[in-house]
Amino acid sequence: MTTLFADLNPPPRILMGPGPVGVDPRVLRAMAMPMLGQFDPAFTAYMNETMELLRQLYRTKNKWSFLVDGTARAGVEAILVSIVSPGDKVLVPVFGRFGHLLAEICRRCGGDVVTIDREWGTVFTPEEIEAAIKQHHPRILAVVHGDTSTTQAQPLDEIGALCRKHDVLLYTDATASLGGMNVAIDDWKVDAASSGLQKCLSGPPGSSPITINDRIVEVVKRRRHVEEGIRPPDFIEGDGPIISSNYFDLGMLMDYWGESRLNHHTEATSMLYAAREAVRIVLAEGLDACFARHRLASDALTTGLTEMGLMLFGDQRHKMPNVTGVYIPDGVNGDAVRGMMLNDFGIEIGTSFGPLHGKIWRIGTMGYVCRKENVLIGLAALETCLRQAGFRAKPGVDAALSVYRGAGQ
Amino acid sequence: MTTLFADLNPPPRILMGPGPVGVDPRVLRAMAMPMLGQFDPAFTAYMNETMELLRQLYRTKNKWSFLVDGTARAGVEAILVSIVSPGDKVLVPVFGRFGHLLAEICRRCGGDVVTIDREWGTVFTPEEIEAAIKQHHPRILAVVHGDTSTTQAQPLDEIGALCRKHDVLLYTDATASLGGMNVAIDDWKVDAASSGLQKCLSGPPGSSPITINDRIVEVVKRRRHVEEGIRPPDFIEGDGPIISSNYFDLGMLMDYWGESRLNHHTEATSMLYAAREAVRIVLAEGLDACFARHRLASDALTTGLTEMGLMLFGDQRHKMPNVTGVYIPDGVNGDAVRGMMLNDFGIEIGTSFGPLHGKIWRIGTMGYVCRKENVLIGLAALETCLRQAGFRAKPGVDAALSVYRGAGQ
Repeated sequence: MTTLFADLNPPPRILMGPGPVGVDPRVLRAMAMPMLGQFDPAFTAYMNETMELLRQLYRTKNKWSFLVDGTARAGVEAILVSIVSPGDKVLVPVFGRFGHLLAEICRRCGGDVVTIDREWGTVFTPEEIEAAIKQHHPRILAVVHGDTSTTQAQPLDEIGALCRKHDVLLYTDATASLGGMNVAIDDWKVDAASSGLQKCLSGPPGSSPITINDRIVEVVKRRRHVEEGIRPPDFIEGDGPIISSNYFDLGMLMDYWGESRLNHHTEATSMLYAAREAVRIVLAEGLDACFARHRLASDALTTGLTEMGLMLFGDQRHKMPNVTGVYIPDGVNGDAVRGMMLNDFGIEIGTSFGPLHGKIWRIGTMGYVCRKENVLIGLAALETCLRQAGFRAKPGVDAALSVYRGAGQ
Repeated sequence: MTTLFADLNPPPRILMGPGPVGVDPRVLRAMAMPMLGQFDPAFTAYMNETMELLRQLYRTKNKWSFLVDGTARAGVEAILVSIVSPGDKVLVPVFGRFGHLLAEICRRCGGDVVTIDREWGTVFTPEEIEAAIKQHHPRILAVVHGDTSTTQAQPLDEIGALCRKHDVLLYTDATASLGGMNVAIDDWKVDAASSGLQKCLSGPPGSSPITINDRIVEVVKRRRHVEEGIRPPDFIEGDGPIISSNYFDLGMLMDYWGESRLNHHTEATSMLYAAREAVRIVLAEGLDACFARHRLASDALTTGLTEMGLMLFGDQRHKMPNVTGVYIPDGVNGDAVRGMMLNDFGIEIGTSFGPLHGKIWRIGTMGYVCRKENVLIGLAALETCLRQAGFRAKPGVDAALSVYRGAGQ
């Protein structure tokens, strides 16, 4: 007996959670394009173009800016497994869930991990990070840029210089921030960064744009890649500890994305089409215009929420513009409100993790979803749901609209 | 200066290489569907349906049949990194390039790898494999099912029973075979298998369907998953060696795909839509009908090639139906012919690796591309290109057409 199930027919949603978010229809259209062979000159040209688009997105001259085939976490792991050798001291400043993830991945790579912690909803000062560097002498600093679990963005503009001063490699996870706020890899002296498509880039999850500079390439070069096998890498073969992953071995990925085009995985064709189109859309809008759109939505949303009588979560000076944390009012069942939002209005807002579980909602305004109409619709819906849940919310939509009007929109 | 490049506009190709191949338009359409949140009940229902569809495809009752988010190689690595502990003896019978890959991945996992080798174009007898098991006492046997590099499929129907007899775990890489020929996980007593979408399943590369049975789950349970962290896994936490990957930790993936739905990566929405639709299409045709279609195309193609005066590569008794190796005639420049095929006819055929490089072409008839018209067009085009390259090919199309006519088509 064969069971086929029904035709795919996902209900329409306005995805205002922490991601994934709604995909730009131009990205969906790009994914509908037919396949090419992976070594077809037409396809390798698209690979090269994608690399150049990623350089512009990351504001870097790094040659090695390319895609890892997997979700955002795949890009994180590809970088960390390729640079963290067993015994390497790694410092991870943790200010939310994804800092814990970086620490966990580094431990799995055999790293000697030291964490420093901040209360969720706050970030570190450069002085705190420098003190930890001086105390622990790490080889690598791995830090989340924007952590959706707390809505906070760790300022990185001074951290790169600190790392150079103390001869530390700096990796940052820019999954949540890239495309929504400034990520200036070269200016900030960030050595490696990774991201995903499914937040401010308005693509589906499943492809991870990364960028690495020459300092990282040198480290990868010193690692071993294969003990024996039919195809030793062209590009690099060091005598350091072997990289424990083939799929995530940045040396092999460079051999594949570079001139030698050595066969490795088969590049995920449709996801590359998606990534290329998603980045083109952001660059066509203009990076600064795109950041301003996220900033304005954040201002309107936080104004509306405050006006409704809700309390914002976290240090507002360091809140990412694309996600807003708001306390669940006393006596209100947070999950029931989220259920009403989804089932009555078709709007998804986010729950939260760890110490914040049951305490705050997280409302995303990311990428294609980051639009005036969604901010207003979201506030109107939330107001009704709160009323249904017994909380007398004041109207907040008008105040949010005023913020847009004040910006001439 | 922003560089945006041109709109995506891939030239139409008939992809008759070893993969990726043309994607069924119904799969492309599925990928154009809008996003859902990863914990939206509508989406988790699609995840569950996909698991059931994969069980039917793999002919298994294994609960744990799901997707790894990455290309086929991601599924290989997820299984191997989760079951091969440092020092584990692993036996890898190598009869082509992808056997070398399995050996390499197992070594990176710290496995004590022993390989046995066959000349490319042949496969092992069960007796040869049993002899190696008796000699080396492996804990795991990792073997490719169908290796596109040589076109050969290793018969597995007796190997599972051998492995049970000697208390060995059997993993097979079914990337190239699944959907094109019988892969009977339960009947054959295969403990774990992985595949990709981009061959006989007519999907894009980027999602890897895997299946594992309880014997594998027990092994994964005994591994450690996190040393510390905010979210210890619900499902399993053993005291064995830690799994060196977070992204590929099957314990965490089971926590995510199972009832507890613990957050891990964000499932690649569009690729899940693609996988679900691709498998539905194969099951709607019927597995045996689908295999017969591939078999018939292989018969027609090999008849046509032979009629043209070309010599087939490899042991024809064990050739996969979805890919055919054929010797490049003496004096003919193989790459020039492939270039003509691509540039004059829009048809991609494959080159080859390692010891076969420059000696054979590989012609794929996989999935959606495996159609009478493509077999006939491919033969007609090759005939012309060979003539242009100075080889007087006899007509082969009529003989191929006769094979189809003889089957009533």
